[in-house]
Amino acid sequence: MYQVDLNCDLGESFGSYTLGLDQEILPFVTSVNIACGFHAGDPAVMHKTVELALKNNVAIGAHPGLPDLNGFGRRVMDITAREAYDMVLYQVGALQAFVKAAGGILRHVKPHGALYNMAAKNSFLAEGIAEAIYKLEPELILFGLSGSEIIKAGERIGLRTASEVFADRTYQSDGSLTSRQQMNALITNEQDSIEQVLGMVTTGSVLSRQGSLVHLKADTICIHGDGAKALLFARKIRGALLDAKVSIRAVKGKIS
Amino acid sequence: MYQVDLNCDLGESFGSYTLGLDQEILPFVTSVNIACGFHAGDPAVMHKTVELALKNNVAIGAHPGLPDLNGFGRRVMDITAREAYDMVLYQVGALQAFVKAAGGILRHVKPHGALYNMAAKNSFLAEGIAEAIYKLEPELILFGLSGSEIIKAGERIGLRTASEVFADRTYQSDGSLTSRQQMNALITNEQDSIEQVLGMVTTGSVLSRQGSLVHLKADTICIHGDGAKALLFARKIRGALLDAKVSIRAVKGKIS
Amino acid sequence: MYQVDLNCDLGESFGSYTLGLDQEILPFVTSVNIACGFHAGDPAVMHKTVELALKNNVAIGAHPGLPDLNGFGRRVMDITAREAYDMVLYQVGALQAFVKAAGGILRHVKPHGALYNMAAKNSFLAEGIAEAIYKLEPELILFGLSGSEIIKAGERIGLRTASEVFADRTYQSDGSLTSRQQMNALITNEQDSIEQVLGMVTTGSVLSRQGSLVHLKADTICIHGDGAKALLFARKIRGALLDAKVSIRAVKGKIS
Amino acid sequence: MYQVDLNCDLGESFGSYTLGLDQEILPFVTSVNIACGFHAGDPAVMHKTVELALKNNVAIGAHPGLPDLNGFGRRVMDITAREAYDMVLYQVGALQAFVKAAGGILRHVKPHGALYNMAAKNSFLAEGIAEAIYKLEPELILFGLSGSEIIKAGERIGLRTASEVFADRTYQSDGSLTSRQQMNALITNEQDSIEQVLGMVTTGSVLSRQGSLVHLKADTICIHGDGAKALLFARKIRGALLDAKVSIRAVKGKIS
Repeated sequence: MYQVDLNCDLGESFGSYTLGLDQEILPFVTSVNIACGFHAGDPAVMHKTVELALKNNVAIGAHPGLPDLNGFGRRVMDITAREAYDMVLYQVGALQAFVKAAGGILRHVKPHGALYNMAAKNSFLAEGIAEAIYKLEPELILFGLSGSEIIKAGERIGLRTASEVFADRTYQSDGSLTSRQQMNALITNEQDSIEQVLGMVTTGSVLSRQGSLVHLKADTICIHGDGAKALLFARKIRGALLDAKVSIRAVKGKIS
Repeated sequence: MYQVDLNCDLGESFGSYTLGLDQEILPFVTSVNIACGFHAGDPAVMHKTVELALKNNVAIGAHPGLPDLNGFGRRVMDITAREAYDMVLYQVGALQAFVKAAGGILRHVKPHGALYNMAAKNSFLAEGIAEAIYKLEPELILFGLSGSEIIKAGERIGLRTASEVFADRTYQSDGSLTSRQQMNALITNEQDSIEQVLGMVTTGSVLSRQGSLVHLKADTICIHGDGAKALLFARKIRGALLDAKVSIRAVKGKIS
Repeated sequence: MYQVDLNCDLGESFGSYTLGLDQEILPFVTSVNIACGFHAGDPAVMHKTVELALKNNVAIGAHPGLPDLNGFGRRVMDITAREAYDMVLYQVGALQAFVKAAGGILRHVKPHGALYNMAAKNSFLAEGIAEAIYKLEPELILFGLSGSEIIKAGERIGLRTASEVFADRTYQSDGSLTSRQQMNALITNEQDSIEQVLGMVTTGSVLSRQGSLVHLKADTICIHGDGAKALLFARKIRGALLDAKVSIRAVKGKIS
Repeated sequence: MYQVDLNCDLGESFGSYTLGLDQEILPFVTSVNIACGFHAGDPAVMHKTVELALKNNVAIGAHPGLPDLNGFGRRVMDITAREAYDMVLYQVGALQAFVKAAGGILRHVKPHGALYNMAAKNSFLAEGIAEAIYKLEPELILFGLSGSEIIKAGERIGLRTASEVFADRTYQSDGSLTSRQQMNALITNEQDSIEQVLGMVTTGSVLSRQGSLVHLKADTICIHGDGAKALLFARKIRGALLDAKVSIRAVKGKIS
């Protein structure tokens, strides 16, 4: 029987600024990635979000990003592997403290935004990130783009990894996501999205933009909670997976 | 036989900015308080400083401050107890990650600057800080001004505390430090400083500016490493304590 | 014939975070105070907001705040008069550049949040702020709490000032606002609010919580645009003023 | 007769952190570029630095950088032309306010670090920057790498430009600087440096690493003030230029 995790970003508010429908998306997911204060989130938001996640019984992960609150961590920055190591270690440690103080356990780490994309392609950055996580806590699960450098780096160092796939993005024949700069990067038809997800979960493959079959691992699917339409889609994806007898549960780690 | 800890702040550099003679002060102290990125320090500096401290075999503590890099955490900010809890938990967690990744153990927490002073007087802030530390790791030792609210809050919640005294500051009859706004806040004569320290360590008391004898605990003495003169004074204090057969060693915690 | 200005804060979004109904509140006001990047706003938001304000033909002011984005500039910070001078000069200069580049003219400055309140009571801070504005551009109008230190400081240095009154706050017999910590700080009944405003504009006085008549100047009224209810109230205040034959227009400066 | 400007960066301290020998380098230069708070500097430092520059009678310029204090504005960030426009306008406006309040006139703008390098190669960013400066104040002089996109963009929009050359960097046959990643990027021999500078100023050309003659304009030379050795070299360069009867003076703008 097939199984998959549904993950979403959480705790992206900051000070007086509210972002995301955190409360509303929680019933649909099994894992959450909580912002750590660099691209979004702040200590108060982290505190509240960790408690919300624990109350909803989802697996808690850290969501470290680039130090760019104004750009929401989405602007590529030319950082070294050592800088990536340091900024991930700092942020994951900070979030882990909130989880521990609330009586929970931190399960995974998923880099955010530009850091996620950079680590998917750049093996040096990927290794810096994987090493920071491993040295802090070797039982943590590393979430990253299926087939990418970050997954490879995680496995090399001995971390459990979770290969992530996307419902609303198209793939290239090399397994990478079609760049948002290109046409057809996004799947806008909901039914197509759902079929892509079901295909990835049950066959371990996806049809690329070029028409070739790409093999990938679908341990976890990225879900968005940033609007009424996103919530509705989350409900549909979840329903379609359950209808197809796919078990939806958090990624199993060494410690769970 | 008497014993006392000598502590100093460390890792207060930031990016391209260097502050403090970290390497040079280390031989004179037994505990260090490492900045955590809010009032000073950054992930790269924390990484380097933790490794330097481990190499020098000193007890490592976190030195969380107010979120005010430009004011070096020295400007009083009107924060709530909950905000104090959150900002301390965040920073201590971040530093603990670097210590853990480097194979060390975090021993203590000493609030910095305005946060230190506010927590000495305001029992609500003191409790917020003590609770954050206790919930993260009940074995951590809380450093604070001898006789102040933060020491009381730490003891109430069940933390081991270390009462701090100052070599270069004068005391009021209620045990508080003379405000820097007042005359005679600082002891500028080195011999007077050394005598004050020896008296505090061996008799558990100090003569206040008003002439009364104030009882206090002298578990740890604050030493500065911010200039050639400070280094020289650190050497003298250390020599005078050793001459007086005072054992200089890190504060003993539950876990050490 | 009576006249009054209606002002509201604008441009308080930041990066990916949206705050306030800027577009919607504009038809009801004659002056706007645009955030300058310290407590809210960023260069992109300032750019867009200045253009929006120019299109709507309202008088543009700078809204400098404390360097505390996380606390939205609402947490009191212990700053010196010189620090107040510097942070106001920096922020007003930055906003003025956007106004000038867009072909407009900066008309006024209204300090934000804790800085507004601190400058109302502390004459040293008030003087620092007034001096920064005067030295940058002596024709700028200084907005501040009616009867407060900031208005006095502005007049002493030679600035044109605009005394601000509040529709939804109660007054003490010394002319200060009732602290939000106290009961009855806010007027929740809309009709009472409107009557207070009409009274202040037409009689130059208000009934204090203690029952005494307080004299004040009502050059400009603070209007909020942070929700549907606030918009509705803005419409009502505006309607009531027009019904009472009060002319609603921006404060006249030396240069307008 | 030949003439050239000597410029250096100034005001790169921040809060409690001191950087650069500002006071000492001033006698050797005719123009200074003052940091504006994004990569270095803060309102208090800008205030003090502007006054220091005015006292020393040098031409004052703004030195805007990327919003990356921790990386000192040296890490490339993937920003849009609009973002470049906004961040330059914001920073130049802020500095101009300090200059105006102190009774001076802002003369030029020189982008800093990664922003300087990005604008030398990317014509879109170059245009964003040039437009911000032109719209704020068309009389400002734009400093940039000789022969680069930023100089072209400045000239297209109608700004007076100053082509900058480097004493301690080698050139490629296309007129670009040899990347620091490559060997031989730096000229370490002082005499070679001085000869390169004299050649550039008097012949309008330099020998590239490839051995070809590269034509360039040498309106201003970048001088460093970050150490005793840098100061000594500044003195030598200045002496060599004077010996060669080169007149050393600030770049003449439309308004000077």
